[in-house]
Amino acid sequence: MTTLREAGGSFLWFREPAFNGVAISYLCDRVVYTGHSRFQRIDIIDTRLHGRVLFLDGVGQSAERDEFIYHELLVHPAMFSHPNPESVLIVGGAEGATLREVLRHETVKRAVMVDIDGELIEICKKYLPQWNSGSFEDPRAEVVVGDGRKFVEETDEKFDVIIVDLSDPLEDSPAVYLFTREFYTLLRDHLKDASGCVVVQGEGVSPQENTLHVRMVKTLEAVFPVVRPIIYSLHSFHRPDSHILATLQKDWQPEMPARRLEKAGMNLKFLSPEVMKAVFAVPPYLKQAYE
Amino acid sequence: MTTLREAGGSFLWFREPAFNGVAISYLCDRVVYTGHSRFQRIDIIDTRLHGRVLFLDGVGQSAERDEFIYHELLVHPAMFSHPNPESVLIVGGAEGATLREVLRHETVKRAVMVDIDGELIEICKKYLPQWNSGSFEDPRAEVVVGDGRKFVEETDEKFDVIIVDLSDPLEDSPAVYLFTREFYTLLRDHLKDASGCVVVQGEGVSPQENTLHVRMVKTLEAVFPVVRPIIYSLHSFHRPDSHILATLQKDWQPEMPARRLEKAGMNLKFLSPEVMKAVFAVPPYLKQAYE
Amino acid sequence: MTTLREAGGSFLWFREPAFNGVAISYLCDRVVYTGHSRFQRIDIIDTRLHGRVLFLDGVGQSAERDEFIYHELLVHPAMFSHPNPESVLIVGGAEGATLREVLRHETVKRAVMVDIDGELIEICKKYLPQWNSGSFEDPRAEVVVGDGRKFVEETDEKFDVIIVDLSDPLEDSPAVYLFTREFYTLLRDHLKDASGCVVVQGEGVSPQENTLHVRMVKTLEAVFPVVRPIIYSLHSFHRPDSHILATLQKDWQPEMPARRLEKAGMNLKFLSPEVMKAVFAVPPYLKQAYE
Amino acid sequence: MTTLREAGGSFLWFREPAFNGVAISYLCDRVVYTGHSRFQRIDIIDTRLHGRVLFLDGVGQSAERDEFIYHELLVHPAMFSHPNPESVLIVGGAEGATLREVLRHETVKRAVMVDIDGELIEICKKYLPQWNSGSFEDPRAEVVVGDGRKFVEETDEKFDVIIVDLSDPLEDSPAVYLFTREFYTLLRDHLKDASGCVVVQGEGVSPQENTLHVRMVKTLEAVFPVVRPIIYSLHSFHRPDSHILATLQKDWQPEMPARRLEKAGMNLKFLSPEVMKAVFAVPPYLKQAYE
Repeated sequence: MTTLREAGGSFLWFREPAFNGVAISYLCDRVVYTGHSRFQRIDIIDTRLHGRVLFLDGVGQSAERDEFIYHELLVHPAMFSHPNPESVLIVGGAEGATLREVLRHETVKRAVMVDIDGELIEICKKYLPQWNSGSFEDPRAEVVVGDGRKFVEETDEKFDVIIVDLSDPLEDSPAVYLFTREFYTLLRDHLKDASGCVVVQGEGVSPQENTLHVRMVKTLEAVFPVVRPIIYSLHSFHRPDSHILATLQKDWQPEMPARRLEKAGMNLKFLSPEVMKAVFAVPPYLKQAYE
Repeated sequence: MTTLREAGGSFLWFREPAFNGVAISYLCDRVVYTGHSRFQRIDIIDTRLHGRVLFLDGVGQSAERDEFIYHELLVHPAMFSHPNPESVLIVGGAEGATLREVLRHETVKRAVMVDIDGELIEICKKYLPQWNSGSFEDPRAEVVVGDGRKFVEETDEKFDVIIVDLSDPLEDSPAVYLFTREFYTLLRDHLKDASGCVVVQGEGVSPQENTLHVRMVKTLEAVFPVVRPIIYSLHSFHRPDSHILATLQKDWQPEMPARRLEKAGMNLKFLSPEVMKAVFAVPPYLKQAYE
Repeated sequence: MTTLREAGGSFLWFREPAFNGVAISYLCDRVVYTGHSRFQRIDIIDTRLHGRVLFLDGVGQSAERDEFIYHELLVHPAMFSHPNPESVLIVGGAEGATLREVLRHETVKRAVMVDIDGELIEICKKYLPQWNSGSFEDPRAEVVVGDGRKFVEETDEKFDVIIVDLSDPLEDSPAVYLFTREFYTLLRDHLKDASGCVVVQGEGVSPQENTLHVRMVKTLEAVFPVVRPIIYSLHSFHRPDSHILATLQKDWQPEMPARRLEKAGMNLKFLSPEVMKAVFAVPPYLKQAYE
Repeated sequence: MTTLREAGGSFLWFREPAFNGVAISYLCDRVVYTGHSRFQRIDIIDTRLHGRVLFLDGVGQSAERDEFIYHELLVHPAMFSHPNPESVLIVGGAEGATLREVLRHETVKRAVMVDIDGELIEICKKYLPQWNSGSFEDPRAEVVVGDGRKFVEETDEKFDVIIVDLSDPLEDSPAVYLFTREFYTLLRDHLKDASGCVVVQGEGVSPQENTLHVRMVKTLEAVFPVVRPIIYSLHSFHRPDSHILATLQKDWQPEMPARRLEKAGMNLKFLSPEVMKAVFAVPPYLKQAYE
């Protein structure tokens, strides 16, 4: 019987819903917070492997030990693609880490973050201080609690860079209608000029699971002249993943953000000028999937 | 009660041992093979997400839907780093997919594969035909059933490229003593000349889990003048991963294999000349870990 | 990290749907059969603890190592409650084990088993031979593939004992409409005379989970003068469970089947005359739930 | 993909170690307490099905919704087997529920409880108030924090009834050496007179898993003239279970405690006079196992 004996102490597990036939269970050291906001179930767990993790409706959003990869790649390729980003709109991003990375750019004069879930923002402030690192207190930042789409529809303000930092568009999530051609057109029309850049969380890109990503790329290509995936992998997401950069600059090249990053001398943990170019390299199997 | 109801049909799961505090469970459509060889437990399962998967001692080794990524990256960066690879040694590689990729190089006159587990080779031949794709029948191939280290110790033959395709060096696995300085020195001494290249499976590279990878890089650096990680991510491995290239060519640059791949016009699914350069880009957090 | 190491070999698990907030996972030694009949998903698994287990729509139905408890208790209390059971109707019971126990009574001249799932019957014959033990070949047995309710509605035949051996009345199961007052009335009207007995699988009786059981008892009490739970526990069901005996004999007492069992000298593995009386003892918390 | 979608909210699970090849996972509503005492890991969890549950080293000990069954059956058959129990020794029993049931007997003048884990006692007082229900404050109760065996070895006091309420004798548990012939002899020698009774938690009694139980019965039979299992099933233990009564009364019969319970008019939730007799009925398969 002893051959069946499991290790001492591995009892409490957070089991993500297995939408795709793989169930990921996280060994929990501590349940930091569990509750429901008006919009979603929120769990914050100290996990053994990934450190503190934020789960929304049971799905991991970002993890203490590798959120820097997600957020550096969401923010800096877009920001460094723009010659002089002064005004930035973030749709979603309740944790405050996207805002944190945006504000590292000294060119930025104004960063507006619109997230529908005000309770989530407060919970993240309280339990995930590493994520925002004080960015909510920056005088350049404005936080709006409200529906991101409605905000864009109603505002006359235009932006240099727009960053869409949303959870997966699951059927019941508040984010589902933010993945449409109409919404992307709305974003394009709120870019200040022909240097404008948009970046969105771009979903999985593995050979197994890229349908949603490919659909997003194609939807964006109907609206923007240049659309380029940013490919990366996060241990805490347990799959190859992506963001998608869309810009009005017809002559955009990966060398442009790489060169600007080098010049800025910004000290990043995942991105270097060399890595900046590398993340835009698309494997042939994925290129084929776009055709 | 209905809110707790789970989906119909998701009953049979293959649960990998959770060494690191994350347990991965694969929904099984069919158990193709379960048994023990002299060396290890072998399971071949048709999983919902990854297609057919080979597990050794419960740990996923390669999966139908993305094994091409693993094997292209293990073989071609090394092969294209050599100006004219005629003789190749593969240590491990029972599935036959490493041999398959090696034999795509027309320069190759002789490829010797040494795997300790003859039963596993036969089982892979029978149940994983996609992996070898007939490579075992190629007249240039020789398969030796035996201890890889002992083979290298005893042979006088030297090779242009040596590929080490082994499972994780878990305590009880047959592979554990193949990750030492002594073994790497042995490999170096069996390279034919100063163009010689070695490549090994390089373990995880996430911020969470890179200790073993870093130790391997450092061990290899004690033996070879140039050691470069090849960074990739496989959905079926559920984490950022790596191979490690080590070569005697002191002037080696990523552009070299990229250019040769372009010239060869080899039609790969993951690697293009652009991707060949990208996989050698090392994020700063990992560079720091090497210091 | 080694403290997290799990035991070798415990990889393949059959996970029952966790309708009630407890998930039971069975370590699998072998998947014997997996498929779908017209009515339900069928899995037959060699489990480590319970031996071979039949699962319908993911829920364990009976297990090699303790099915005798379930079937002895379903059949013999009812059969020995009747002074001379000659004709028996079994509704459900595809595995053949209920029929097996019925045919041990030498008084029986005719036993009709009606199960809607003919494919399931054939699969059980093939993979669960212990369950039927040749009872399908007994000349006294007649097997009808068809809807149990419809069979009872349409037949003029009457029976001494009627045994309802159905899976849980889950929403989507074929059995759901066989737990109603109308159906129980139909059964009563097909009993031959005032000695007639009906027995049904009676669901869980724990303090945690007895709603369905209590509802069944009350529904039966609206139709029969005497209704008595038979309380037992099966390791492979992982909870306290029950059958329910309903009879037209107004003076029925537990001593009656106990005495007849003693006289018959039938060699059972779970039931003795003493145990026959004991299974009718109802704990106060459950008596209260009936009020 | 939606067919694989699991129910909302079922994310946090407490997974018991699967010693025997069945893994039980409890859906958690709240983690009430997690920590280590000097002797064991302690988790107190509000589970969906069983209410609040105490786990020691990952194994469920008792649950809010059915602990009354465990404790009534551990205490009252032994207490009512004695004609006039005035002094009672409890070995183990940190939760205080065994003490609670003992003190319901008005004959009791002194109840000594010896548990090795003082931290556990305090944690149970704080988080499991239903279990002790104020019994620790009863002037008849004395709580000793110490090694139960050593206490018995060193004391000259003798008792009418001795109750051994310990967790499973797992290899590493503090309880392992309390299941030996030497310890049982020690207990016998601390019974006041020929009416003395001992009762111990008796382990699983299913056909699948009764080895430990049978060994305990036989060990006790080497020391006591009358040894009788008390058979029951607890939903929160997920298997058929037992206690074992051992007494010096050679003429002991189940009717004796049943009659005394009736006379006492004690209002219990699981035990009635009828059920008191029933729990002593031993199925033939288990009788055979004793031979």
